[in-house]
Amino acid sequence: MKNPIYLDYAAATPMDPQVVKTMRPYFSEKFYNPSATYLAGRAIHGELNSARATIARWLGVRPAEVYFTAGATEANNLAISGIMRRFPDSEVLVSPIEHLSVLVPATQFTCKKIAVTAEGIINLEDLRKKINGNTVLVSVMLVNNELGTIQPIREVAKIIGSIRQERLKSGSKHPIYLHTDAAQATNYMDLHAARLGVDLLSINGGKIYGPKQTGALYVKAGINILPIILGGGQERNLRSGTENVAGFIGLAKAMDIAQKSREKESNRLNSLLKLLILELKKNVPDIQVNGSDKHQAPHIAHVTFPGTDNERLMMELDENGVQVAVGSACSAAKTEPSHVLAAIGITDELARASLRISLGRQTKAKDITATIKLLKRLLTR
Amino acid sequence: MKNPIYLDYAAATPMDPQVVKTMRPYFSEKFYNPSATYLAGRAIHGELNSARATIARWLGVRPAEVYFTAGATEANNLAISGIMRRFPDSEVLVSPIEHLSVLVPATQFTCKKIAVTAEGIINLEDLRKKINGNTVLVSVMLVNNELGTIQPIREVAKIIGSIRQERLKSGSKHPIYLHTDAAQATNYMDLHAARLGVDLLSINGGKIYGPKQTGALYVKAGINILPIILGGGQERNLRSGTENVAGFIGLAKAMDIAQKSREKESNRLNSLLKLLILELKKNVPDIQVNGSDKHQAPHIAHVTFPGTDNERLMMELDENGVQVAVGSACSAAKTEPSHVLAAIGITDELARASLRISLGRQTKAKDITATIKLLKRLLTR
Repeated sequence: MKNPIYLDYAAATPMDPQVVKTMRPYFSEKFYNPSATYLAGRAIHGELNSARATIARWLGVRPAEVYFTAGATEANNLAISGIMRRFPDSEVLVSPIEHLSVLVPATQFTCKKIAVTAEGIINLEDLRKKINGNTVLVSVMLVNNELGTIQPIREVAKIIGSIRQERLKSGSKHPIYLHTDAAQATNYMDLHAARLGVDLLSINGGKIYGPKQTGALYVKAGINILPIILGGGQERNLRSGTENVAGFIGLAKAMDIAQKSREKESNRLNSLLKLLILELKKNVPDIQVNGSDKHQAPHIAHVTFPGTDNERLMMELDENGVQVAVGSACSAAKTEPSHVLAAIGITDELARASLRISLGRQTKAKDITATIKLLKRLLTR
Repeated sequence: MKNPIYLDYAAATPMDPQVVKTMRPYFSEKFYNPSATYLAGRAIHGELNSARATIARWLGVRPAEVYFTAGATEANNLAISGIMRRFPDSEVLVSPIEHLSVLVPATQFTCKKIAVTAEGIINLEDLRKKINGNTVLVSVMLVNNELGTIQPIREVAKIIGSIRQERLKSGSKHPIYLHTDAAQATNYMDLHAARLGVDLLSINGGKIYGPKQTGALYVKAGINILPIILGGGQERNLRSGTENVAGFIGLAKAMDIAQKSREKESNRLNSLLKLLILELKKNVPDIQVNGSDKHQAPHIAHVTFPGTDNERLMMELDENGVQVAVGSACSAAKTEPSHVLAAIGITDELARASLRISLGRQTKAKDITATIKLLKRLLTR
């Protein structure tokens, strides 16, 4: 069989050959512990900090504000639980369509959820209404991993800015922070923290053609959060354990490549996504495209094929060389319908008839055409 | 300058070329998310579980009892805090020479410390005395990372076994578990969990010629511990986040190589260590070798050179091509003397005159001879 057509880039990305090449010397040659104090150890420490600086540059922040983690799941946990354990009597406000690595830690504290529209965009009025004097953290993802919807982070930041002003005026010293999970956004969007208006931001190597289980959390200087993993005090006491030197250097390279090509790649994929949706609507009757028309990332199409069983459809596509997702792969082989689809009012029945088709660097127009042709054949026989 | 003589294998090990080769296909080719449900995803899931089975085999346990983590630091945190948060009113008993990734989490709970001898071995009588009806967890490392001393785990397990019997007789249902951090032992010792008598055991890829930030925790079936990193529920809900496929498969390969060669390599290094100590004593006056004569791992010599400044001696050795450690690299660039040396009664002054010299796979007799010669020249001029 010829190479399969991979359309699940939102679940995993192959490592960029340049990233692999960048990492290679750190496996067996530059293998030193970055905490070792002889010159070779200090040199590795320096190279790790250059990687940190690369990430910081794309975020427009200081290197000292970037902490390496084992992936976005750990970064999200660190953001949520790192803030909330400092303010255990305060409230956290999240969207109900966050990744489980935000939702599950958040619900261990007093947690409110922001209403979302049927398109999968948070309702800003509801957000403002649900912030009270006790709210210390708001966490809203930049791009949803199932629907591909882009959330209005700048508007959220403006609301939080005005809340800060109000608190200042009223003499309250209670802080309020904004965290965003940018795992699905890093390939396509500007992540400059000040322009977004965020105080904490998570990135993920495994979704940007970098190594799996590498990530970083930006924490604005002056925000004092509590660590989760304790020990030797690496990452300035925020995250212990001998650093994943090769992995973190690979992460920085992956971020560099992704950010340099983000506009060109966004335009390219946006055209392919439009083609996909247009041809789907033309060729397969009665489909429903979920997500937003206006605020949609260029790589994710979430489509309902009423009357089908998505597991079966996915398997038939797979047998014919097209790999797509039944929901998000991030909730390890769960059989319950997705909390994201439930939040935007999609019934269980329709959820079980939906696929996520996600594009990436290797996707070409002919892959889209072949997929449409196959779907047409499978669904109209 | 010719290649340096690396004598800091207890801090970091170069990846075995076979490990690198085993990992390579998982970077850009077999990159799928193991939670993806198309065949290629399921295949990766299967390969990850084969890696788990390899580790399980060397531990003599079931694959389902092995959980992958980002290194031993996370595994140790998960063991300690995973048990103690389930029994927050109970006590944990640790040796005072544990790695900081055990000590720091342990001291967040009610924690008692076992006395250690001047040789750096725990006092079993003191251990027995300090276990009370409220003790739920005992954590004692297999090999100390600074001194190289081997702890009497089987004897600890016997004591815990007898405590279990007593509790059973008296009608107490309070459990008591034994955890061991085997990070420094995996290259040299049998880790069969039942033979050791342990209920939880941590391993570390970065110390066994495998990838940094890979590790595993064995948790005996029936022990229900709480997760630290929450989200998608990977690792059977004990540790969320898309799995480090390449890393975990590399970890299993590294463990396989290490365990297969452990007797041969132990004998080889043991001879080199004896040579090192003998020649040191012969050539450098007044040195003091710390640790144990009888219960010593084959790869670590901890030596005090009275009257010297260890930072300066380390730098002079480094300038002359020999890399050794000033204490443990694991406590990221700390300037305080080590808690391990303090625990065995070494004064600050002597601690600041001590080096850790640790051997590994690339160490040859000529490296030892050259190091002795250099030390003699530096210290007797």
